[in-house]
Amino acid sequence: MKSINSLIKEINELESQLDQKDFLLTWEQTPAELERVLKTAKVLKTMRAENIATNVFNNGLGISLFRDNSTRTRFSYASAINMLGLAQQDLDEGKSQIAHGETVRETANMISFCADAIGIRDDMYLGAGNAYMREVGEALDDGVKEGVLPSRPALINLQCDIDHPTQSMADLAWLEEHFGDLKELKGKKIAMTWAYSPSYGKPLSVPQGIIGLMTRFGMDVTLAHPEGYDLIPEVVEEAKKNAVASGGSFTQVDTMAEAFEGADIVYPKSWAPYQVMGKRTELLRANDEAGLKSLEQECLAQNAKHKDWHCTEEMMKKTKKGEALYMHCLPADITGVSCKEGEVEEAVFEKYRIATYKEASWKPYIIASMILNRKYANPGTILQQLLDDDKKRVK
Amino acid sequence: MKSINSLIKEINELESQLDQKDFLLTWEQTPAELERVLKTAKVLKTMRAENIATNVFNNGLGISLFRDNSTRTRFSYASAINMLGLAQQDLDEGKSQIAHGETVRETANMISFCADAIGIRDDMYLGAGNAYMREVGEALDDGVKEGVLPSRPALINLQCDIDHPTQSMADLAWLEEHFGDLKELKGKKIAMTWAYSPSYGKPLSVPQGIIGLMTRFGMDVTLAHPEGYDLIPEVVEEAKKNAVASGGSFTQVDTMAEAFEGADIVYPKSWAPYQVMGKRTELLRANDEAGLKSLEQECLAQNAKHKDWHCTEEMMKKTKKGEALYMHCLPADITGVSCKEGEVEEAVFEKYRIATYKEASWKPYIIASMILNRKYANPGTILQQLLDDDKKRVK
Amino acid sequence: MKSINSLIKEINELESQLDQKDFLLTWEQTPAELERVLKTAKVLKTMRAENIATNVFNNGLGISLFRDNSTRTRFSYASAINMLGLAQQDLDEGKSQIAHGETVRETANMISFCADAIGIRDDMYLGAGNAYMREVGEALDDGVKEGVLPSRPALINLQCDIDHPTQSMADLAWLEEHFGDLKELKGKKIAMTWAYSPSYGKPLSVPQGIIGLMTRFGMDVTLAHPEGYDLIPEVVEEAKKNAVASGGSFTQVDTMAEAFEGADIVYPKSWAPYQVMGKRTELLRANDEAGLKSLEQECLAQNAKHKDWHCTEEMMKKTKKGEALYMHCLPADITGVSCKEGEVEEAVFEKYRIATYKEASWKPYIIASMILNRKYANPGTILQQLLDDDKKRVK
Repeated sequence: MKSINSLIKEINELESQLDQKDFLLTWEQTPAELERVLKTAKVLKTMRAENIATNVFNNGLGISLFRDNSTRTRFSYASAINMLGLAQQDLDEGKSQIAHGETVRETANMISFCADAIGIRDDMYLGAGNAYMREVGEALDDGVKEGVLPSRPALINLQCDIDHPTQSMADLAWLEEHFGDLKELKGKKIAMTWAYSPSYGKPLSVPQGIIGLMTRFGMDVTLAHPEGYDLIPEVVEEAKKNAVASGGSFTQVDTMAEAFEGADIVYPKSWAPYQVMGKRTELLRANDEAGLKSLEQECLAQNAKHKDWHCTEEMMKKTKKGEALYMHCLPADITGVSCKEGEVEEAVFEKYRIATYKEASWKPYIIASMILNRKYANPGTILQQLLDDDKKRVK
Repeated sequence: MKSINSLIKEINELESQLDQKDFLLTWEQTPAELERVLKTAKVLKTMRAENIATNVFNNGLGISLFRDNSTRTRFSYASAINMLGLAQQDLDEGKSQIAHGETVRETANMISFCADAIGIRDDMYLGAGNAYMREVGEALDDGVKEGVLPSRPALINLQCDIDHPTQSMADLAWLEEHFGDLKELKGKKIAMTWAYSPSYGKPLSVPQGIIGLMTRFGMDVTLAHPEGYDLIPEVVEEAKKNAVASGGSFTQVDTMAEAFEGADIVYPKSWAPYQVMGKRTELLRANDEAGLKSLEQECLAQNAKHKDWHCTEEMMKKTKKGEALYMHCLPADITGVSCKEGEVEEAVFEKYRIATYKEASWKPYIIASMILNRKYANPGTILQQLLDDDKKRVK
Repeated sequence: MKSINSLIKEINELESQLDQKDFLLTWEQTPAELERVLKTAKVLKTMRAENIATNVFNNGLGISLFRDNSTRTRFSYASAINMLGLAQQDLDEGKSQIAHGETVRETANMISFCADAIGIRDDMYLGAGNAYMREVGEALDDGVKEGVLPSRPALINLQCDIDHPTQSMADLAWLEEHFGDLKELKGKKIAMTWAYSPSYGKPLSVPQGIIGLMTRFGMDVTLAHPEGYDLIPEVVEEAKKNAVASGGSFTQVDTMAEAFEGADIVYPKSWAPYQVMGKRTELLRANDEAGLKSLEQECLAQNAKHKDWHCTEEMMKKTKKGEALYMHCLPADITGVSCKEGEVEEAVFEKYRIATYKEASWKPYIIASMILNRKYANPGTILQQLLDDDKKRVK
């Protein structure tokens, strides 16, 4: 990996407005801003490997709000704020008085008097998650403007209905590590494909995040899914525009086989059809238990028609030299391991298991990087300071 | 705000025994002790604003025990211990073996081997919450005396059946900020009035805390509530005595209108009748679900007779120049926002929304101040040390 | 207590491989290794008493996974990682995606990117708890070998189906404190006996931990329980071997009275029969609610036949000079206090109450010591460094 010094030098040279906006969608950020986040994450990861303390806060809270289950993202966020010196405080809406009709605006201020970061996962409601985050962000801006809050906490999108930026950026960091340089990604073919899973209602944010981000770097991005498993149309349009702008391409095909053909990277993963997520949102809002149950049955039956969307060794043979890099946000539904029939064959997953772990290992550093880039006009200065202090993380 | 130096000087001059007793009821503290807590809180708030680290602990636990839901108090406590350098550990009686008949005395010691603060919210049982805190305090004293505990954790009353000192002291700090000086409060009229809410069983500790504390500073405190919504008689007696001693007054009237008449400050808030809370306690102890349900119905019906106890723009016109300061511990039941008919009209709440946020913003610093005043004979010395160290909170 | 300096000197002279293996069973450690853990714990406890900061980590996570309720162990673990500078992150399998079929291997890596310690309590499943910990340990080794994890977290057994090393080591530390020196334990008689409790399904790990550890130090260990309340046979064999090797003895008798006869120390505690725990494991695995209910009834009825296994003042008279030291891991089932009829008479418990608190007070330091001994080839060097730094824990 590049030396910390040269990375800091590169960070200092990148233009960025990330200290003035929340990083809620990757396609709202400039290429330079994306690179800043990647390089800052790289420095943080290298510093940890070299036992250099990265605490920039002597105290402060890093608040988390999870509106969906999570292990990886929860631990990644906890790791990120911890490496910066913040303490986690979870806002559990079950326990809290929010359940009693408290407004978002008020809550956002009440929890933030001593907060430096707020991470939110809200991916259940189509059309609501990202909107909720922006509402929180505005409340925080207002709180600072009105003199209620001493400082503006960094708002981190830990997965919404539209994008999963900490995941896609971690994926990108892994690709950069794997292929040696971002420039190497130019012209590489990545196949983001649907895959069969016995579960249902998986968010669209991962595939959307991938096509929305990978099209920024001149990659040939191919999306494939069975009929009816569409993504949010606006995001698909975003991907098309990105591909044109970056000199890459965005293609949609109808089978996993076509998508895998000659691919350098494959990302086979299950998700729920956009339309189903829409219905589900209405039913969740209406607390229609019966409706949700029947929608689930309906959707599982629909999934079952597409068990051939299976990442097998046969399928992998179609990829470039049969050696494409397999990616997954984890946990994968592994046939014969975590389920009877799933997204990927055990032999394929096993071959790339360690690779997927390394892919995941970037997330804590990406989140910490996003916080630093939100708090500091130039995190390079701070990273240099940490380097000069040379305080050990572990005695 | 006054400079940190002059505040520290004032703190050094105030007599206090707060390092030898727990701050469980404001009326057990001398005026000088109350001022010490206020000024220490002010210094801590100013230090944060000026990015000065306030960590006095390099490690140690701040334990929390919430026997009732809480967002604000939970985050305020978490913020307070964090700014001092402690880590939160929640004692969840649901999860813990306390449910299996463990004695208070034993638990108090078992959780405190490395604890420097214990915050307890126990406001559900009339006659039990404050008593429980004292029982814990005695167990901690015993543990230190017997050589079980290396040091005495500060016990913080995060709301009990009798008082809500962190709330009332935060309210007082806000009044001091708003009116410029504690002396300015002398002769000011504050109306602590009941207000209609569709909910029921709200603790008495806020109104009791307000009449018990604001009568200490020569204010003209007026209490108003519908017939049958009495507070604990002993606390009302306390308020009367305080008023005489401080040269203020304590008046009880029968309508919101009378209370608002010429008021400088209004605090309209719902609470459950003292007698109902008593019944409720028995039923809760007896786990009488049916009894609780019918008591709730009965009480809600009773509330519904008093919907005219509503803080409207009309009502506000009765206050001094129609410009009284509206206060609330939050969340308020806002008519048309958080409920159909509630405590306050939206227009009134909106006008004072930011004011109520600023009111709430004092709580973390009040709690941290209480901990410092319990741990140190003179927190002024410690604050001076922090000032001299001049360590940044954020790099 | 010995001076810190002399203890560090002794630590430096003790051979240990504890930095290369997890401390999962006391009988897998050499006598020198056990002594290293005891002495390191002593230094940490003394440093806290002398207000010397023991933070060796500037950041890092200490993960906890509790598969059974816990107050003491939870707080002991939280205290241990906190005194070293780590932040707790609880892995709640209820909330997490582990429930959705994620493999142990994957989870172990996903939570450990920034973890320095992982504490696991898994005592419900006979034959599974300790095995699970080893599986996690292997996954962590693999993660480090493959370059997924920057460092190997220390794995701490917070109670499994076989042993409860943090408890038994804390008990040993207490005995050393009480009798002045480990050598003083040679030839002392300790009676580990079953006692009646109205509850059921209590793990075997405490009695197994006691007979497995106390036989290492030349003590005369006597085990007594009603017919059918056997411990795991392999552990009993372990105890026999240990006794021979250490020049002590291991005896099994059929009544509490025989066991108490001339004892220097008594440890009367309830546990479930080995066979019952086996059945229970099958039923838990099969989610057989009805089966579990009937097993519980059956077991409680069986317990009820042995109410005479009661630690009374009469019974205590049989011990050496009637003054044996009473021990318990807490909470004890105290007759007339925590239950109608239980393990111990109130008068006996009251006499030794403070002693049992002091026994418990060692656990946080034992856990912290285990972490230091896993992370450092020689914790003596680190402790010396902390001593030289002489940073105050509390300003």
